Amino acid sequence: MRSYIDGFERRDWETGDADGVVRLAVVGLGGFARDFALPALADADYCEPTVAVSGSPDVAAAVAADYDLSATVDYDAFADGAAADDYDAAYVVTPHSLHPEHVAAAAALGKDVLCEKSLAATVEGGERIVEAVAAAGVRFVTAYRLQFEPAIRRARELLADGFVGNPVHVHGHFSVTSLATPDEPADDWRLDPDRSGGGALVDLGLYPLNTTRFLLDADPTSVFGRTRSEHAAFADVDEHVSVVAGFDGHDPSVDAVWTASAQAHRASHLTVIGTDGELTLDPVFYEGERQGLRLDRGGVTSRFTLDPVDQLREQFDYFGHCVLTGEDPRPDARHGLRDLELVEAIYESAERGAAVEV
Amino acid sequence: MRSYIDGFERRDWETGDADGVVRLAVVGLGGFARDFALPALADADYCEPTVAVSGSPDVAAAVAADYDLSATVDYDAFADGAAADDYDAAYVVTPHSLHPEHVAAAAALGKDVLCEKSLAATVEGGERIVEAVAAAGVRFVTAYRLQFEPAIRRARELLADGFVGNPVHVHGHFSVTSLATPDEPADDWRLDPDRSGGGALVDLGLYPLNTTRFLLDADPTSVFGRTRSEHAAFADVDEHVSVVAGFDGHDPSVDAVWTASAQAHRASHLTVIGTDGELTLDPVFYEGERQGLRLDRGGVTSRFTLDPVDQLREQFDYFGHCVLTGEDPRPDARHGLRDLELVEAIYESAERGAAVEV
Repeated sequence: MRSYIDGFERRDWETGDADGVVRLAVVGLGGFARDFALPALADADYCEPTVAVSGSPDVAAAVAADYDLSATVDYDAFADGAAADDYDAAYVVTPHSLHPEHVAAAAALGKDVLCEKSLAATVEGGERIVEAVAAAGVRFVTAYRLQFEPAIRRARELLADGFVGNPVHVHGHFSVTSLATPDEPADDWRLDPDRSGGGALVDLGLYPLNTTRFLLDADPTSVFGRTRSEHAAFADVDEHVSVVAGFDGHDPSVDAVWTASAQAHRASHLTVIGTDGELTLDPVFYEGERQGLRLDRGGVTSRFTLDPVDQLREQFDYFGHCVLTGEDPRPDARHGLRDLELVEAIYESAERGAAVEV
Repeated sequence: MRSYIDGFERRDWETGDADGVVRLAVVGLGGFARDFALPALADADYCEPTVAVSGSPDVAAAVAADYDLSATVDYDAFADGAAADDYDAAYVVTPHSLHPEHVAAAAALGKDVLCEKSLAATVEGGERIVEAVAAAGVRFVTAYRLQFEPAIRRARELLADGFVGNPVHVHGHFSVTSLATPDEPADDWRLDPDRSGGGALVDLGLYPLNTTRFLLDADPTSVFGRTRSEHAAFADVDEHVSVVAGFDGHDPSVDAVWTASAQAHRASHLTVIGTDGELTLDPVFYEGERQGLRLDRGGVTSRFTLDPVDQLREQFDYFGHCVLTGEDPRPDARHGLRDLELVEAIYESAERGAAVEV
């Protein structure tokens, strides 16, 4: 037990020699980049921010001063290769609809890319990324930070080891209170489906969806979705979403039920119930907060409360480590594209009131 | 807090003078009746078993000896009014498909009836019960024991008091390992859809479904279901089931996701996530076992571990108390019929791969 606990946060991916540090261009300086990503990057072992790419010179200048960057450029200059000698790879953290052009620009410059999820606002955008990355032959990671989080990785190992027997059902939920005044329209690209690709499903539902894919190492083959909006701010996107997904390619088959809300009490959980046990992570999806893990098997219930881990730092270091050691990183662009296909199928299902095969 | 804790298990329905004890005919002596219901009845304040109705004279004789009953009769004699002076009301606990004829027989004799859920194996059977009860003018309760369970009743009060704000999503799960050798066909009426009305959904899924109806005081208006079976014993009924239900009549609308399995690790939970908080019961659905209640609101998380309560005894006492005081009991036959309509809609949905309005 002591070695299990002591090794709980181990970086199982940290093998081979990684010399140096990958210099990153941070493409997009919105709230998430400034408040979460840049502080994590500043702390990372294998990455450092060196260039800021933004449409706002003032924001870029402030960030450059805070993090002692070597250059700031706008999007056009970035695409033209400005300051390309000052960074080795790009971290794309713009609104979803802009990912394809920013990834394509970085890939065309021969730069490896870490791109925030959702990969794009549409399946077509995701396909463009897959093609651009393949054509340029660069390394690419879709930034599902949960896949680098120790509790999730330990849960995945437990499932692979048969801890719950055969998984039978998965429950997942993620909700936050996005807006203080949801009855008023809000100026946020996440509320514009053309820029975001969708509402609660894309912003929050992807967490239980993608984490279930990662935990089971399988993809849904059938999805049914229900979406609804109550408040004016969510007139154009789903405020709440519920999904039933069938993983019929998993042997034996598994069903997952996921819910997400962009305007509800902060809550998150992920539960896998199998033939021989149950594994629950609660809370699970918040960046930089405590997580809970409960395991039930053979009459023994164990509960772990886990100190916060900087999931973004883990993710940046994983990416940097792969770049430095030449390893093939995951989750790749096709993995991110699969989520876009699932999102599209879930919205189509909600529209039609029927399950959609994917 | 002290008065809240001290009053946690209070019988809020126990008002008015209830003199005497209601003498019950126990109609059906299967495992559930012998192992759970009769011991609870023997302990009850307002009910006592006096007559056993069974097709097996040996079983009836053994039960009569154990519980000092005044008479044992077979089903035909029961319908003819045998020993009718020895009981005041009937508790019907036969296979679901037989409920209509046994309820109709008791009602025709002018006896009040407590009938196990599921109310019948089909919607038609349930309608027959509604009509028989109305025609005879007797009292009737569908035996949803969870509705008499203190933790569930306290949860309902908390929700009515706005503890979670507006409910947004409900998650529910119930699973047991029914069979030691699921690969072999088993001789159990629950596995015969003609007698049971269905598999995991009817036997287990009704718990989260009906408890959600009770907690929200609302009914689903749209359901989507997925069913599947892996093992030979479940060839004719669903071994696993997943449901998304829309409570569009609730203001604002609520979605519920429920899963149940007749062949998985013992697990049960019910979670209501609202705009201002979260309420979780885990475990929740087992008879006579500890329950857990977790409440999250305003940055305060409280956890209650509750000693076992004999839910069946609570239910028998509620029924007896209503009979003795002349109160109109709930949940009535129409409430039980509604679940049959929902079950039928969920199976139809699973067949068609589309949501069904109810």
